[in-house]
Amino acid sequence: MKRKIRMGMIGGGPGAFIGEVHRIAARMGGQIDLVAGVFGRDPKKSREIADSLFLCPDRCYADYASMVAGELGLPVNERIDFVCICTPNHLHFPVSKAFLEAGFHVLCEKPVAMSSAEALALQKIIESKGLLFCLMHNYSGYPMIQQARQAIADGMLGRLRKINVEYSLGWLAAPNAGKQASWRVDPKQAGISGCMADIGTHAQHLIEHVTGLKILQISADLSTFVEGRALDDDGSVMMRLSDGARGVIFASEVATGEENNFILKIYGDKAALEWRQQTPEELIIRSNDAPMQILRRGWPGTGEAAAKFSRLPAGHPEGFIEAFANIYDAFVEAIRSGKPGDYPGIEEGVSEMRFLEAVVANSNGNEKWTNI
Amino acid sequence: MKRKIRMGMIGGGPGAFIGEVHRIAARMGGQIDLVAGVFGRDPKKSREIADSLFLCPDRCYADYASMVAGELGLPVNERIDFVCICTPNHLHFPVSKAFLEAGFHVLCEKPVAMSSAEALALQKIIESKGLLFCLMHNYSGYPMIQQARQAIADGMLGRLRKINVEYSLGWLAAPNAGKQASWRVDPKQAGISGCMADIGTHAQHLIEHVTGLKILQISADLSTFVEGRALDDDGSVMMRLSDGARGVIFASEVATGEENNFILKIYGDKAALEWRQQTPEELIIRSNDAPMQILRRGWPGTGEAAAKFSRLPAGHPEGFIEAFANIYDAFVEAIRSGKPGDYPGIEEGVSEMRFLEAVVANSNGNEKWTNI
Amino acid sequence: MKRKIRMGMIGGGPGAFIGEVHRIAARMGGQIDLVAGVFGRDPKKSREIADSLFLCPDRCYADYASMVAGELGLPVNERIDFVCICTPNHLHFPVSKAFLEAGFHVLCEKPVAMSSAEALALQKIIESKGLLFCLMHNYSGYPMIQQARQAIADGMLGRLRKINVEYSLGWLAAPNAGKQASWRVDPKQAGISGCMADIGTHAQHLIEHVTGLKILQISADLSTFVEGRALDDDGSVMMRLSDGARGVIFASEVATGEENNFILKIYGDKAALEWRQQTPEELIIRSNDAPMQILRRGWPGTGEAAAKFSRLPAGHPEGFIEAFANIYDAFVEAIRSGKPGDYPGIEEGVSEMRFLEAVVANSNGNEKWTNI
Amino acid sequence: MKRKIRMGMIGGGPGAFIGEVHRIAARMGGQIDLVAGVFGRDPKKSREIADSLFLCPDRCYADYASMVAGELGLPVNERIDFVCICTPNHLHFPVSKAFLEAGFHVLCEKPVAMSSAEALALQKIIESKGLLFCLMHNYSGYPMIQQARQAIADGMLGRLRKINVEYSLGWLAAPNAGKQASWRVDPKQAGISGCMADIGTHAQHLIEHVTGLKILQISADLSTFVEGRALDDDGSVMMRLSDGARGVIFASEVATGEENNFILKIYGDKAALEWRQQTPEELIIRSNDAPMQILRRGWPGTGEAAAKFSRLPAGHPEGFIEAFANIYDAFVEAIRSGKPGDYPGIEEGVSEMRFLEAVVANSNGNEKWTNI
Repeated sequence: MKRKIRMGMIGGGPGAFIGEVHRIAARMGGQIDLVAGVFGRDPKKSREIADSLFLCPDRCYADYASMVAGELGLPVNERIDFVCICTPNHLHFPVSKAFLEAGFHVLCEKPVAMSSAEALALQKIIESKGLLFCLMHNYSGYPMIQQARQAIADGMLGRLRKINVEYSLGWLAAPNAGKQASWRVDPKQAGISGCMADIGTHAQHLIEHVTGLKILQISADLSTFVEGRALDDDGSVMMRLSDGARGVIFASEVATGEENNFILKIYGDKAALEWRQQTPEELIIRSNDAPMQILRRGWPGTGEAAAKFSRLPAGHPEGFIEAFANIYDAFVEAIRSGKPGDYPGIEEGVSEMRFLEAVVANSNGNEKWTNI
Repeated sequence: MKRKIRMGMIGGGPGAFIGEVHRIAARMGGQIDLVAGVFGRDPKKSREIADSLFLCPDRCYADYASMVAGELGLPVNERIDFVCICTPNHLHFPVSKAFLEAGFHVLCEKPVAMSSAEALALQKIIESKGLLFCLMHNYSGYPMIQQARQAIADGMLGRLRKINVEYSLGWLAAPNAGKQASWRVDPKQAGISGCMADIGTHAQHLIEHVTGLKILQISADLSTFVEGRALDDDGSVMMRLSDGARGVIFASEVATGEENNFILKIYGDKAALEWRQQTPEELIIRSNDAPMQILRRGWPGTGEAAAKFSRLPAGHPEGFIEAFANIYDAFVEAIRSGKPGDYPGIEEGVSEMRFLEAVVANSNGNEKWTNI
Repeated sequence: MKRKIRMGMIGGGPGAFIGEVHRIAARMGGQIDLVAGVFGRDPKKSREIADSLFLCPDRCYADYASMVAGELGLPVNERIDFVCICTPNHLHFPVSKAFLEAGFHVLCEKPVAMSSAEALALQKIIESKGLLFCLMHNYSGYPMIQQARQAIADGMLGRLRKINVEYSLGWLAAPNAGKQASWRVDPKQAGISGCMADIGTHAQHLIEHVTGLKILQISADLSTFVEGRALDDDGSVMMRLSDGARGVIFASEVATGEENNFILKIYGDKAALEWRQQTPEELIIRSNDAPMQILRRGWPGTGEAAAKFSRLPAGHPEGFIEAFANIYDAFVEAIRSGKPGDYPGIEEGVSEMRFLEAVVANSNGNEKWTNI
Repeated sequence: MKRKIRMGMIGGGPGAFIGEVHRIAARMGGQIDLVAGVFGRDPKKSREIADSLFLCPDRCYADYASMVAGELGLPVNERIDFVCICTPNHLHFPVSKAFLEAGFHVLCEKPVAMSSAEALALQKIIESKGLLFCLMHNYSGYPMIQQARQAIADGMLGRLRKINVEYSLGWLAAPNAGKQASWRVDPKQAGISGCMADIGTHAQHLIEHVTGLKILQISADLSTFVEGRALDDDGSVMMRLSDGARGVIFASEVATGEENNFILKIYGDKAALEWRQQTPEELIIRSNDAPMQILRRGWPGTGEAAAKFSRLPAGHPEGFIEAFANIYDAFVEAIRSGKPGDYPGIEEGVSEMRFLEAVVANSNGNEKWTNI
């Protein structure tokens, strides 16, 4: 009989929004048991969380090193199958490294590391160990993003010309935006960038994932609007992509009043598409020769790529958590089969770090275009 | 240590959309283990589903009677805590009755029964046994529906005047709409009504739930547009409600091209609100004295009632499954505490059956208004 | 050389919103000169308006009878070609009658009269005189309404089944809504109905105009929510139409917070359409077999019927005034050619009065269905 | 007695969309008579247009020079008061110059000239002659743009931080886009830029008009996607503005499927606003502390600045032509009073040319930022 997959978690302590998202997403498919973890730095609070999750108390560990050791000490048929890492950025690399070296598969939050050097180091370990690595670029788990990707691969848009991506949030508009916000603008925990690392990398990943193009050159203007911040809280990027396409990324975490406004517009010489994360069930298709179409999840005109990532009939809104869970489901399938599947991995991690380093360098320098 | 709540399921066999919805919703909170069930009428397929759900094989039963007996035969600390009933309508009553009489709590799909007499009989059992009963009117689990209810209770709309509810689907527009559709227009399985039982009761429930008013009189016009159907696939209802309010329900399952288009507009003498199930994160507030406001889940202006039913920050779309899970969460809390909580119950079931009977009688007769 | 058409106006005094609309609409095509008029009951204010319109002072008359006489006294090549009547309802009939009997074409606001008897009397005069009569049902002048009508005539929707029309305004929600509002609920000036005469007739006309069906039976519930009003300020109507179609009209002038929210949804067995007056450039097309389409004025997929009523390229929003002007343009063309054209006329006026009388009778009585 | 203002027109020949727009807009207020003109280069067709406009035949001139001479030869009380210039760009300067030097007021299409040098030359003439000059930046005539401007001036947004403007059209996506398109990418008629001159200047003007800020530095990437074109058909611009604000302009005429998609988003440290030309009646206001508001033309919350530019009650959609007419109305008022009013003039023309020259230079060069 098939068994459930055993998951461990590093991160997701009290108040950590994304940790709870990982836990719900992991539950949705009914294929995963969360059996071990370190839920934040405070042992008492970590224990409380472990209790509320019905964990066996001796698998709530003091830190990730103890957890690696502890799990290795268990019989193979009790050990976790993989670990989910949802800590601040600076821990992604060392924790991934520790678990990979101990032979565990890893699912890690983005950005994958603090530098492209770290990302490349991880890539080497993953390849040499033959382990599975999933980078949680959750937005690619949306059915209509898969529909968009398929439409472009099928040539529906023709040759791509122009890309306009907007990712704006208002949550860092004021100086004091809470704990979740503060580590994101602290270089020690976030790395070389704030806004661009946090949301610009989502934009970069989705552009490359959906279009199949590569961003080759960028010209960037990062800003820090709130005084006293050590990292950017806003940025603009002009892009030149493979196959002659061009585009713009508008990213801001000081966009007052915006919730999680992530919009993707892609124009080809035959047609164009538009997707909005806050109404994720729709994909707008425009052309010069036909009426505007609104493809909707679950409805005729929407194909296999979206259907694979869909649970409910049309008109029964799916959202953020299902997209997240889709990445989990794909990773579980890979663990069962032992073969990497269709989820973002370490290559995407290397790309995002190179993009980030180019953007920061260009914004600090005087050259107009920086190659990636 | 707190333990997980043990759930059984009757229904949710192969191809049953709503059964899978129940299972996902039950998982989301991490508080429920599905441990027993009868998953449709075909024992082989039921077993396959049980296996895919990691159930212990001997708790996949042949029928609901065997399950009642089987569970009673287990030690108390292994038995299910409650059963979820997601069969066609005609089984809601006998299955609920059987489990209640055996002392199990019940969560049942709507409509609660085939007649108000059955609903009243159930009510008697529930009260005499002191058990918990939850009627799955899932739309009341949406955060912004709770926000709407709170706003009206707080007097924000003033005295209510006019209600306009539209619930339209296209799925029964053609004669052959599949297995899920066929039982809904079969009097033996669906009861005295098709469209009105299936979606009209959602409208009636949400109106009374959100406004706190009672529908007192109706005038109705049910139609069967697809030839050969034994039950209505469409209907219109004019309503007179308590406190002088009036309104209209437009319900149709032959509304070609509509997915699950459930819209609620409520006008008071001070303000009005509008909610649309397909964009459930928003609640539109209008008045004659101020700009239109769009309240959004998780954003300032949206209060406690919505927050209680919300998991993610604003801009991270929640949808149908979360609303469903909210009812489960409330029911689990009630089971833990032993006290009924804030979820629809048998009173709502009695109301919906009386509404349904009045609508069918009025539509078949010559009187203009029928009292409920 | 072709000359401009000479127009007179009865109504449109100070503060009269619709009179100014008529004047702007009449100007848009550059084919009409406003040369004579009675602009409200106050001679001094009427004169001021005439001056502001650059009228020759001796063609600003004291009342409509003097204007008939005065114009008849002028040489034929100076007289008005037609008169526009935009007074409160009770004057539509006598003023139309006077000008028609004197041999002038008439363009009149809706509703055409105070009763079907008056409407029929007008029809007789019009026919016996061979004059042109235009009834200003301005919403039928919208390009996308013409597109909708064409689509239905072409069979795109298949056989029509269900119609859902909503017309809601908030302007009469409070007792004191100003001069423009007060005559609309005064039986002496408005007739047997308030809300239904004012906006219900727009709904009835557009339904019949767009679908080509006739409303055969209605069941209605008129309400007066604001105390002390002598006429309805709200109403609901269930309809049975020719060819087996059914539907609902939701009309309210106490729908707090609504501006001019006129929505038309028409479902056939092949497809459905939706049009919203507040975003009039779009026509939504839905079916069970294809993605939702949004036809837009001026864009491929939108045909000749709409193009004929369109001035600007797609994306350059047209609105209310252009729709109004389209009716004027059609009437001017009819005057030039001497042949009635494609604009609403006296037949539509007779229909609207019969509808209105049936609705009021049904709402006051006990029978469920009233024939029209 | 007040008289109508007499207008002449250069341009607006057969097929010229914008010429007809000018004529309709000029008619709307009922204050202007079009009495003279040169309607395109073909004398026969120009005559036909003049006839259709009921012009006196001897005031349909062969060319603009003859028109200057002809009008000067008329008695003062018959001469045109101003000329409207709606030719391709290269004629804006010489025709403006000729009429201004002859003492006529001028209303001219944008961009004002072929270079900032020409714009400065015009400015000198205008100032020395004491004449009125209106530059037709029609989008600033929208009521909700005036509302936006007022809101910012009143401090509602706080200190401005980030601006995101998108102006995308699909009309030049294919090589052969018709006569209206071809002159816009011909350097002899359009000047140094195609897309940026045609729509980028609208973006630049609206940004400065609405925010009151100045664009100080830009970094640009112009593209020519359709082979064989001599000028840009697309471009992106990063901006640094006065008071520390930054922003992006995304402009494209090869944005397949877009109609006239002009979107303005402005973020301050207190609140943000969004306006979309294709739904111009709305202005979205967002903040971190309150629900999203949608201000609508004519509704409470929308103030004097918008009301001044509004004709119809809320819910009666106004559009492109009314915005255009608002600029005409303001110019007519200025002509009557002899004093410049609140419409774009030669200063805005100088700014737009400087912006255009900086964008083209930057895009062709290697420096990252170019000062304006």
